[in-house]
Amino acid sequence: MILIDSSCLDVQMEEIVTGRCTKVARNLHMERLRNHYLFPEISARELEHIKKYPNEKVIRLGIGNTTEPIPEVITLAMSDFTRALSTPEGYRGYGAEQGNMELRKAIVKTFYGDLPVKDTEVFVSDGSQCDISRLQLLLGSNVTIAVQDPSFPAYIDSSVIIGQAGSFEDETGKYQNIVYMKCGPQNHFFPDLSNTLRTDVIFFCSPNNPTGHAASREQLEQLVEFAEENGSIIVYDSAYAAYITDESPQSIYEIPGAREVAIEISSFSKIAGFTGVRLGWTVVPDELLFSNGFPVIHDFDRIVCTCFNGASNVAQAGGLACLSPEGAKAMLSVVDYYKENANILAETFASLGLNVYGGVNAPYLWVHCPGLRSWDVFNEILEKTHIITVPGSGFGPGGEEFIRVTTFGHRETILEASTRLKSLVLV
Amino acid sequence: MILIDSSCLDVQMEEIVTGRCTKVARNLHMERLRNHYLFPEISARELEHIKKYPNEKVIRLGIGNTTEPIPEVITLAMSDFTRALSTPEGYRGYGAEQGNMELRKAIVKTFYGDLPVKDTEVFVSDGSQCDISRLQLLLGSNVTIAVQDPSFPAYIDSSVIIGQAGSFEDETGKYQNIVYMKCGPQNHFFPDLSNTLRTDVIFFCSPNNPTGHAASREQLEQLVEFAEENGSIIVYDSAYAAYITDESPQSIYEIPGAREVAIEISSFSKIAGFTGVRLGWTVVPDELLFSNGFPVIHDFDRIVCTCFNGASNVAQAGGLACLSPEGAKAMLSVVDYYKENANILAETFASLGLNVYGGVNAPYLWVHCPGLRSWDVFNEILEKTHIITVPGSGFGPGGEEFIRVTTFGHRETILEASTRLKSLVLV
Repeated sequence: MILIDSSCLDVQMEEIVTGRCTKVARNLHMERLRNHYLFPEISARELEHIKKYPNEKVIRLGIGNTTEPIPEVITLAMSDFTRALSTPEGYRGYGAEQGNMELRKAIVKTFYGDLPVKDTEVFVSDGSQCDISRLQLLLGSNVTIAVQDPSFPAYIDSSVIIGQAGSFEDETGKYQNIVYMKCGPQNHFFPDLSNTLRTDVIFFCSPNNPTGHAASREQLEQLVEFAEENGSIIVYDSAYAAYITDESPQSIYEIPGAREVAIEISSFSKIAGFTGVRLGWTVVPDELLFSNGFPVIHDFDRIVCTCFNGASNVAQAGGLACLSPEGAKAMLSVVDYYKENANILAETFASLGLNVYGGVNAPYLWVHCPGLRSWDVFNEILEKTHIITVPGSGFGPGGEEFIRVTTFGHRETILEASTRLKSLVLV
Repeated sequence: MILIDSSCLDVQMEEIVTGRCTKVARNLHMERLRNHYLFPEISARELEHIKKYPNEKVIRLGIGNTTEPIPEVITLAMSDFTRALSTPEGYRGYGAEQGNMELRKAIVKTFYGDLPVKDTEVFVSDGSQCDISRLQLLLGSNVTIAVQDPSFPAYIDSSVIIGQAGSFEDETGKYQNIVYMKCGPQNHFFPDLSNTLRTDVIFFCSPNNPTGHAASREQLEQLVEFAEENGSIIVYDSAYAAYITDESPQSIYEIPGAREVAIEISSFSKIAGFTGVRLGWTVVPDELLFSNGFPVIHDFDRIVCTCFNGASNVAQAGGLACLSPEGAKAMLSVVDYYKENANILAETFASLGLNVYGGVNAPYLWVHCPGLRSWDVFNEILEKTHIITVPGSGFGPGGEEFIRVTTFGHRETILEASTRLKSLVLV
């Protein structure tokens, strides 16, 4: 049945599979994606390294993957819930697509306290990365977006996939239709808004992944004012808010006016060690309106009902236990553990004479290696210390000269990494 | 801070929220969606009915929601997995976006047996509805699609959202760019392919939701041949394959040539009672190529890595237990239970003198009420018997004159429904 039709094979050699082609054109937007998604690319490099050095123990400070056990009060709740699924009384089929109302109420109470966020504005998700793509489906291909540079790759990649981004320009390392808001030490990791072009949507992550910078109240007031003036929608990613130790706001809704301009996405991944369990949420305020007066929340509800079917009810039972007084206390003790890791690694990199950012309000360090290319630094650290980091340029051209170091890890691993790194001389 | 800007309020009155509009235009594709998604609409009607008849017990034979407890061998595995998340040895963070390899292998072994499906071609998901939208993201707005008429609404609605569908035409009840392949008793629930226009993609669900018809081997051979001739991609939804009792194929890959033209999406929801736990999978064969020779699987992998982060690891642990010999046996005994429900309800509707389809190979009955409008039948059954069904026209114009009846339910509920229905006279 297999016909060899060489006329259709106009792709790079490594991608070719000989066989009969369909007549379905590949989606141009997919073609425009650059190379591979960052984290699978790093995993591939790790595999190569392990093959080269089979006897060395690789330490992973790359992907921000939680490592510490989930407190028992939380797993017991999930375990009880799953066991009850075998009983007539405890069995649950489809839940509400928007999430269990008890959990939505608990999210409001725990994370928004006195702020005017309503339980009906909270949509429980299977994680913020998934909701970023659902938001892109809602927004469609005709909106313009801005991102912090550097930023978490999912904003740009989902924008390319939905068709907002235009072509990639090799000279600049940027997509032509995306506004890159440079954030670095020179501007206190906050964009110069007086020089920033208006876009429909502004993706803004604080505490930022990868820089670890939490925007101050004054900075966020500027951001909300900028969105109000421009009629823009902020998509505010607060996945790391629980790591904030100073007085920086933990939610965009602490800023007056934000309910008319901002969506907030967040996650249990890094607070509760739920990276594999999968649970997050998104807040869409009733007051957020499209230009024709139509509430954004109605379209998001439709997307959630059509393109999603709710987070796993087991994960939701776990989320509810996280927000009990005992669960919240246990959860935050794990956060504190990772923060101590951050202190250890920050001191280590500083002892090498490097400028280290982040770590105080986020589980990431952002290490400056002036004059060096970040993939070179990644390779050199891997080769000399068998430690995986993330090259800053993977987060956008503004990440060049930096590496991101996650502070998730067992303490003994972090201490071992510290020992290995202290002998490092970057060239 | 609230400004009233009446100029932006050009939407229907019930949608209006007074406040300051952003300057972001609502996505035209979202505007084109008809009314509400079918199932939330039915839930709203149920709520109204309960208000009207607070003392009557409503029986839900509407949404296909599983009701029977999950066998203990499966929930014990999930419970053990969650408890282990509290130990250093058992803790798991991010898993592979494509799913746990052990589960992917078990899916191949259990569902594909001797067929040449590879574990690397299986992508574990949080359910087939979610993967339908991810496939639409992959395909993009420039492909044309065909659907069975009637069909599960997610195919059309996700097509509208991504921008393939064009305008809705009130006269026909159809979107202008979608090819509706009528399937009814007159053509043995299989489209007349000699009269069917070529499209890039053909969504095909077998056993079908809502008609309950499982396509025969001969029908599927015709479908694959049609796709081969047209260079089309079939998206084959086999979520109900476990309900097949006759010799109909349980996978499209039983048909020679299918690996070059078909993606298969499937689900644990209706086999294992995982509607709330959330677990499914999608198979993308290596041989499926776009017109330029680029393998579809590479783009799907990219979508899964960028727009998804893997199914909950707890759900995956449950899925693995489902596929153990003991789990599979227990799972299928629940399927048999629902099949007996189908027998009871099929006899009930037949006793009213109505033609009843489905039920043999699917957990749905498709009941023909000639000359009646399906929403009228829905309302009349609800009013007279307090039983929720689904109006056939909710699945497309080809569903007019039919209602869909789910056979998920506790036996006593099904028997009570049968008693109530037997006294029904439809007018």
